[in-house]
Amino acid sequence: MLGVMAVTLEELYRGFEKEQLVPLWTEIGDLMPVSPRSAAVPHLWRWEQLRELAAQAGELVPVGRGGERRAIALANPGLGGRPFATPTLWAAIQYLMPGEDAPEHRHTQHAFRFVVEGEGVWTVVNGDPVAMRRGDFLPQAGWNWHAHHNATAEPMAWLDGLDIPFQYLTETQFFEPGRDQFSDAERITPDRSRAERLWGHPGLRPVAASGAQQQPGLPGSPLLAYRWEHTDRALADQLAIEAEGYGGTVEPGHAAVRFSNPATGGDVLPTMRAEMHRIARGAQTAPVRETGSSVYLVFDGSGSVTVGDRTWAVTRGDLFVVPSWQAFSAGSDPGESDALDLFRFSDAPVFEALRLNRTQVENPR
Amino acid sequence: MLGVMAVTLEELYRGFEKEQLVPLWTEIGDLMPVSPRSAAVPHLWRWEQLRELAAQAGELVPVGRGGERRAIALANPGLGGRPFATPTLWAAIQYLMPGEDAPEHRHTQHAFRFVVEGEGVWTVVNGDPVAMRRGDFLPQAGWNWHAHHNATAEPMAWLDGLDIPFQYLTETQFFEPGRDQFSDAERITPDRSRAERLWGHPGLRPVAASGAQQQPGLPGSPLLAYRWEHTDRALADQLAIEAEGYGGTVEPGHAAVRFSNPATGGDVLPTMRAEMHRIARGAQTAPVRETGSSVYLVFDGSGSVTVGDRTWAVTRGDLFVVPSWQAFSAGSDPGESDALDLFRFSDAPVFEALRLNRTQVENPR
Amino acid sequence: MLGVMAVTLEELYRGFEKEQLVPLWTEIGDLMPVSPRSAAVPHLWRWEQLRELAAQAGELVPVGRGGERRAIALANPGLGGRPFATPTLWAAIQYLMPGEDAPEHRHTQHAFRFVVEGEGVWTVVNGDPVAMRRGDFLPQAGWNWHAHHNATAEPMAWLDGLDIPFQYLTETQFFEPGRDQFSDAERITPDRSRAERLWGHPGLRPVAASGAQQQPGLPGSPLLAYRWEHTDRALADQLAIEAEGYGGTVEPGHAAVRFSNPATGGDVLPTMRAEMHRIARGAQTAPVRETGSSVYLVFDGSGSVTVGDRTWAVTRGDLFVVPSWQAFSAGSDPGESDALDLFRFSDAPVFEALRLNRTQVENPR
Amino acid sequence: MLGVMAVTLEELYRGFEKEQLVPLWTEIGDLMPVSPRSAAVPHLWRWEQLRELAAQAGELVPVGRGGERRAIALANPGLGGRPFATPTLWAAIQYLMPGEDAPEHRHTQHAFRFVVEGEGVWTVVNGDPVAMRRGDFLPQAGWNWHAHHNATAEPMAWLDGLDIPFQYLTETQFFEPGRDQFSDAERITPDRSRAERLWGHPGLRPVAASGAQQQPGLPGSPLLAYRWEHTDRALADQLAIEAEGYGGTVEPGHAAVRFSNPATGGDVLPTMRAEMHRIARGAQTAPVRETGSSVYLVFDGSGSVTVGDRTWAVTRGDLFVVPSWQAFSAGSDPGESDALDLFRFSDAPVFEALRLNRTQVENPR
Repeated sequence: MLGVMAVTLEELYRGFEKEQLVPLWTEIGDLMPVSPRSAAVPHLWRWEQLRELAAQAGELVPVGRGGERRAIALANPGLGGRPFATPTLWAAIQYLMPGEDAPEHRHTQHAFRFVVEGEGVWTVVNGDPVAMRRGDFLPQAGWNWHAHHNATAEPMAWLDGLDIPFQYLTETQFFEPGRDQFSDAERITPDRSRAERLWGHPGLRPVAASGAQQQPGLPGSPLLAYRWEHTDRALADQLAIEAEGYGGTVEPGHAAVRFSNPATGGDVLPTMRAEMHRIARGAQTAPVRETGSSVYLVFDGSGSVTVGDRTWAVTRGDLFVVPSWQAFSAGSDPGESDALDLFRFSDAPVFEALRLNRTQVENPR
Repeated sequence: MLGVMAVTLEELYRGFEKEQLVPLWTEIGDLMPVSPRSAAVPHLWRWEQLRELAAQAGELVPVGRGGERRAIALANPGLGGRPFATPTLWAAIQYLMPGEDAPEHRHTQHAFRFVVEGEGVWTVVNGDPVAMRRGDFLPQAGWNWHAHHNATAEPMAWLDGLDIPFQYLTETQFFEPGRDQFSDAERITPDRSRAERLWGHPGLRPVAASGAQQQPGLPGSPLLAYRWEHTDRALADQLAIEAEGYGGTVEPGHAAVRFSNPATGGDVLPTMRAEMHRIARGAQTAPVRETGSSVYLVFDGSGSVTVGDRTWAVTRGDLFVVPSWQAFSAGSDPGESDALDLFRFSDAPVFEALRLNRTQVENPR
Repeated sequence: MLGVMAVTLEELYRGFEKEQLVPLWTEIGDLMPVSPRSAAVPHLWRWEQLRELAAQAGELVPVGRGGERRAIALANPGLGGRPFATPTLWAAIQYLMPGEDAPEHRHTQHAFRFVVEGEGVWTVVNGDPVAMRRGDFLPQAGWNWHAHHNATAEPMAWLDGLDIPFQYLTETQFFEPGRDQFSDAERITPDRSRAERLWGHPGLRPVAASGAQQQPGLPGSPLLAYRWEHTDRALADQLAIEAEGYGGTVEPGHAAVRFSNPATGGDVLPTMRAEMHRIARGAQTAPVRETGSSVYLVFDGSGSVTVGDRTWAVTRGDLFVVPSWQAFSAGSDPGESDALDLFRFSDAPVFEALRLNRTQVENPR
Repeated sequence: MLGVMAVTLEELYRGFEKEQLVPLWTEIGDLMPVSPRSAAVPHLWRWEQLRELAAQAGELVPVGRGGERRAIALANPGLGGRPFATPTLWAAIQYLMPGEDAPEHRHTQHAFRFVVEGEGVWTVVNGDPVAMRRGDFLPQAGWNWHAHHNATAEPMAWLDGLDIPFQYLTETQFFEPGRDQFSDAERITPDRSRAERLWGHPGLRPVAASGAQQQPGLPGSPLLAYRWEHTDRALADQLAIEAEGYGGTVEPGHAAVRFSNPATGGDVLPTMRAEMHRIARGAQTAPVRETGSSVYLVFDGSGSVTVGDRTWAVTRGDLFVVPSWQAFSAGSDPGESDALDLFRFSDAPVFEALRLNRTQVENPR
């Protein structure tokens, strides 16, 4: 306390720098804002461009051990050129040529596939081959072995979602390469995977512990495919119940289902939420702000979406991001399509687990 | 401490009695046995008799406010003539004549219906009509309004399971009569209830809170019907996966699914577990002891079951009880039927919640 | 359905009886009342009588293997002479003569000791000797080894609380006798047990798993003694905070603390709640009804208590029961003592775990 | 699929850049390493320098609304000059001059204070004044109002820990300024806060909901001060129990306690773990790797610590960081001090909630 030598403010700041220190008072506005100021910005990627570039990569870039996957990631313009769609989420188009194999590996990053178009690829998860078709959602919880194979004569493309940025920033990633060969049994793609046959019956769970295709103790859903026919029917049911006068929708004309872990009822992956939203013809959602960020894929239909101060007309395959606390709303075209179907994934489970989640519904404009 | 007057042992025991006291040392063998000694005994009820008596009651006893239900309960011979199948579980056959209504009420006792034969009755739960058909399981969590109506020209019978004895012994029951009339909308029985349309899609949950047909804050599954076609398929899938060499069954030839709450993945009711077991032709289960008791209904097929030191040949509709810690095993007839299908319900969730559950698998004989 | 033979109502009832069946409609009023009708009745036991009979038993009845404990249980007059204070709770006075040992055993029944008077006995739990003094609360979760020893020249008496009736009715009990000899280290009674030295520091838990004196995987608090000096101070603090104008009490003049498991914050035992209540001089509590039952011990002071339609003047050592859904209130004598201190235990955790708990606070008379 | 125009690899990469896309195959080594490669580096800050610079800031920089706090943060040399001790954790020395007030505010960032030296400052949390003394740990869960006041004639310094970087990267922060004046009651510092009087008794929790000084629904410990006398005694007890032959320590000579939430038994804050470790004279800990990062403060004693490939001799007040998956071990000087006392905080609760935690204990060198 005694003997503080008289220094100037400039000398003080030089002292801070020399000692690897930074004062709060010059940084507080940036670090502790009144509400989240996202570095990520609203941005839209057009499916047409994505698809074209992926196809070019299919011709030019081999897929194999080392590169592991032919995946092309959305890089949010606000995040310094890194392949991060938002500060926590990775979104990429993955592209597999006829007959190609994407090698087996496992990693702590949680992942899912969502099929935009085509069919004929299967994913092998811990030895269980899972068919992939348009509209299917395939969760891939961390540290499960997985590989992909295209058994058809056509290339195939799908959306990969992972928590790569979150685990990169928090430095929690592990990775391990897997086998180079698969058994014959694994190369046959049944219509339903064993995971679906064990866990895909509504409200029914296998009594046998051996029924889990997941490795014991791993988090995440044991159900490895959520088929479009179920998702589509669930959304149609909600809109029908609303029409009968019994609610069931998020708001008028806005149906939504969440992909959930049948063993817990909770989110399908520990760090990512996935949902399908259907906005009926002519309907418009109220603007909502949430902590945490989302990536949306236009699965079907056309309409317009507003993120913060940006508005875009969107159509099938388009991808866009909603940064933290930026208001989001969407409307279905009144004339053209039956409905606007939006696939969404977000980092909400992280913030709910840590009690950092907030939501604010705004008055519609 | 001072002045303890000399008394005889006889005087001491008279003093205990006078003061409403009982010493431990004379009771400990009964109260604190080395392992559970059930008062309930193994017992079998034949469907033929049950059905006949229920039909007679249908002719003689009206159903209406006051008596509330035409339900005839299994009374375990070890439990003093009370209508308790086991110390905690109520099992009854309920019988409804053509055109009859069982009046609306609600109670804290958790309940379910399981349909042994017939179709055409619906249960209205909080205004949502739910069709009932053979093999369907309908949970009815406590304090939800419900009524039944037989819209057909035939009588119908089903199994009612409740935790009446548990709540009777622990003195936690509340009851409230409901409306006497239903709206026209409630008198129409759709193929699928609103509950199924909202919660019956595998791994998908409605995002809207308004999607719950249950009253907010009540425990128990929001899914109000588990249809036989799903249960049957899930069991067949397990046996097929086992045949392919990938496990999935409880033990060889023994498939089993648990009816679960899709909102939590846990048991369908807070105090009762419900499962369907399929024992393939010629298969035999290993004897298992568990704390807590079960009631079994032979849903289909024929075979033989052993409970403690009792063995019975059983066939469709027969009911029997497995008291606490008595070994249970079952075998399917090698020749006659495809499989032995056993519906089971038990008080296991009570003991798991309180950490009092134990299981011991014995060597097969 | 066809061929139901014409029978009389009398014949129908004989048929039920013959087939071990009981109809609901004759029993529903008893089984499914509008609100709980307790079989147990309000009852009071005077400490003076209990103490005298226990002392006589000390002279006449040896303690040792077989009888295991010199414990004398409250038998609720409504429960048919069985040693059940309420349908779920056992309450007994246990009495140990100078130099006596109560042999080691373990059982699934959860237990606690609460010391009414005296000191000098220790309980050895899994080899950890725990001193017992007036006002101390010692939980004893199921399946932990324990024995008692009176190292003094005076007899000692304390209250034993267990869930014996609950486990008796639900048939979940296991019991195992333990060692007949103790090591010298176990015969020394330190001021603080190892359990207290590891788990008795406020808000601090040991990082080492080896710090648990409980056997791994067992439920219940690892803290084996809750000392009166802490309980007393916590109650005094609440009344002081209330006097300063900041709340902190249950209601004016009514302080209460709950004995909790420091590893979970929850109840100290899976099936029993234990609390100490202090009613300040002249204060009166509002009548409260709760599902489930309680046993109260007057630890200190004097006052009057009302249970249902019974009212008693009570003083140190008196014990009474509050059956399910009977209104309870208590008042401290305005002049005589500083406060009325009531130790309470109940079966509340059972009903909270199963979502069967209800509470209703009535207007004070 | 058809009509993919022939492009060169260079053109493909230009296309990616133009469309805000980044391929996985060039980034996978950085993004998905075999095990965490921390950007943060091991680094040590000497208390002497920190203290001197803080004192200079006390002379030159006012504290008040806008800057809010005179806090000087550790800036990890691997993290680009930002005031982040690790990718998720903020650690700063806060300095308050005699008579100064740090203004009231609240924020979603979780925080704590740990007092390195001095006493006489109090923190007012939701109106409850909490005294601060050397060795005390004061958690400050997000969104609780708080201010600081130095009531003495001496400056005072303490360590501030927050999850500022985590909330900054995930963009979940809210902030709100509070009152500018305090009541007289708030300006008096009692020896024990109301929070301690309600929640600071071992194993005892208030029954009254009104006993919480936290705003309802907020996460985090209701106990607002963990006093050094309890922490010190708990550590001494562990070493004594180890010496008696009963374990209780993490490893030989290494005692550790975790600051826990008495309402849940879990971590004191949703995003941060806090512990005190005592390494007995001459003892050495085994190297441990963990996912997630830690900041250590040498509270007392001297010794040497190794982080990854760096080793430092440390003494009272020194601060250092352990990045993710870098091995950490510490040893107490064999001759000089009784023990090495290390205060530690980490982001472990984040990874445990998300199931991303891993630990690996290495063989001692």
